[in-house]
Amino acid sequence: MTIRDIAKLANVSVATVSRIINNSGKVSEETRNKVIKIIKENNYQPNQVARTLYQKRSKMIGIIVPTIDNVFYARIINGIQSVLQPSGYTCLVYSGVGSSNTKYHKAINSFLQNNIDGIISSAFDLHENYYHIPFVMYDSANINDNIVRIVSNNIKGGTEIVDLISNNQIKKVLIQHLPLKLPTVNERVSSIIDELNKKQLNYALQEINESDTYNIGAEKALKNIQKYNAIITINDIYAAHILKLAKKRNLKVPEDFQLVGYDNNELSEFTIPTLSTIDQQPELIGKAAAKRLLKMINGEKSTKNSLIDIKVVKRESTK
Amino acid sequence: MTIRDIAKLANVSVATVSRIINNSGKVSEETRNKVIKIIKENNYQPNQVARTLYQKRSKMIGIIVPTIDNVFYARIINGIQSVLQPSGYTCLVYSGVGSSNTKYHKAINSFLQNNIDGIISSAFDLHENYYHIPFVMYDSANINDNIVRIVSNNIKGGTEIVDLISNNQIKKVLIQHLPLKLPTVNERVSSIIDELNKKQLNYALQEINESDTYNIGAEKALKNIQKYNAIITINDIYAAHILKLAKKRNLKVPEDFQLVGYDNNELSEFTIPTLSTIDQQPELIGKAAAKRLLKMINGEKSTKNSLIDIKVVKRESTK
Repeated sequence: MTIRDIAKLANVSVATVSRIINNSGKVSEETRNKVIKIIKENNYQPNQVARTLYQKRSKMIGIIVPTIDNVFYARIINGIQSVLQPSGYTCLVYSGVGSSNTKYHKAINSFLQNNIDGIISSAFDLHENYYHIPFVMYDSANINDNIVRIVSNNIKGGTEIVDLISNNQIKKVLIQHLPLKLPTVNERVSSIIDELNKKQLNYALQEINESDTYNIGAEKALKNIQKYNAIITINDIYAAHILKLAKKRNLKVPEDFQLVGYDNNELSEFTIPTLSTIDQQPELIGKAAAKRLLKMINGEKSTKNSLIDIKVVKRESTK
Repeated sequence: MTIRDIAKLANVSVATVSRIINNSGKVSEETRNKVIKIIKENNYQPNQVARTLYQKRSKMIGIIVPTIDNVFYARIINGIQSVLQPSGYTCLVYSGVGSSNTKYHKAINSFLQNNIDGIISSAFDLHENYYHIPFVMYDSANINDNIVRIVSNNIKGGTEIVDLISNNQIKKVLIQHLPLKLPTVNERVSSIIDELNKKQLNYALQEINESDTYNIGAEKALKNIQKYNAIITINDIYAAHILKLAKKRNLKVPEDFQLVGYDNNELSEFTIPTLSTIDQQPELIGKAAAKRLLKMINGEKSTKNSLIDIKVVKRESTK
């Protein structure tokens, strides 16, 4: 039983049946009732792929993540799905693009081949949505262009990190960070520096390459640790590795140096000491991204960014 | 530009163009060259959805996971994608089915609506693939029926766990487990019991409900801890919670009791003491599932199960 068969039985055009199934466009009450009756009598289930060709909607959303085995992205996906699944959307997840622009475009093209209704992607270097389908970017810096961006409040995150470690005994803070050319890194580190300056605290920057292992990050952090009594690092996994190396070298946290991570990763509760950190609330990021995408699918044109609040998690690694 | 336009320009049937695009069926060399020339001249990109209708292949695979924010499943997805993406497949991930049979069927039906080429699903109560598309189940017990199952070597896992804790000072072992009606749980616990019996060691079983929190699990584990000097628990997250509570109560691991987790979760490296555990090698499980599915798509009929080896990870929580 196809949409054509229904149209034939009802003696109307395929386009009319399609309009009724998809609840779009004008159809007389009489025709609608006639067609719905035939659909019910014949127990017709519209095939999603066939529907796609008629209505240009697949009820599928593409989600792009740099990697799936970081719980931060898993939680974003959970947030997205919690909004989209009840609305009848199936989510196609494409993972493993890392930070390669080429791979992002490849992922998008693979989605377009499947007539996806919209895309929610982690941030990459794109400033105009020339793909002509609803498109939302998350994990992005607060850039004003034609892209709808879901932005974690990195400015507040940076300020709060400094608040976590600042006390009278601070001499100098080491800030470990990924390359500053990454817009979100730049946003967060700038805010940390602003706040340290405001509090007249000294600091040093230490760039970690994306290709460095966590162990290299930990070695670098502790190399001249006698100069510092606080380390702000990239995220909780880097922080956990620093803790591990510190223990080997008989350094005590927070007595010898305070330590702050980022992301409120599951493991930050289980290290000794437990880690003070900033929670970006990835489920909320995912939910916000999904809601904005649904609005765009329904015709909303605004490209205003959405700002998602962070949460401070104070634990034992800071005083 | 559609496949119909190409057919018109080449003065052949749509079916012929389809055969050429998909490299299936017989077409004369002359016709093939003519059509390919027109495709190239017109820069025609076959639309995946339209192709689906002609060739009944979408080049999409559906993956079902109980939850996405457990790194075990994330690693299985990584393994699957590492095999399928290079073969040109896009992976649709449906997460959040938990252990609800109804939700599994809902997920599968949503995939079928999209003319998926095959499904890789976590285990649920299904013993015949009546969906009539290639179907592989992972995280399954070693059941012999008409389903292709990817099975972690739970028997070996159970034996090796006992090896990790068995020494002369063992008096009694506490085995925490999820309900034994779950086939993989049953498989693993039976093997643990067999090995304990073989070594003439005493044990007690303690069932944890799936609805219990990790904290409840930890409370239960330590309630009569004076009776035991080893705990075998469900996985590393449960083990990490037990460690945390033990520290609060001034109990020392492994001195007061030894502790073994399962899964080699990231956090098992960062607890103090670090956790001895069993690695199910989820990436290998994912790869095996994807390879079996590809074979089925290409016509292989065997429903023999694939057994995936486990790896023992000995750390500080055992003697």
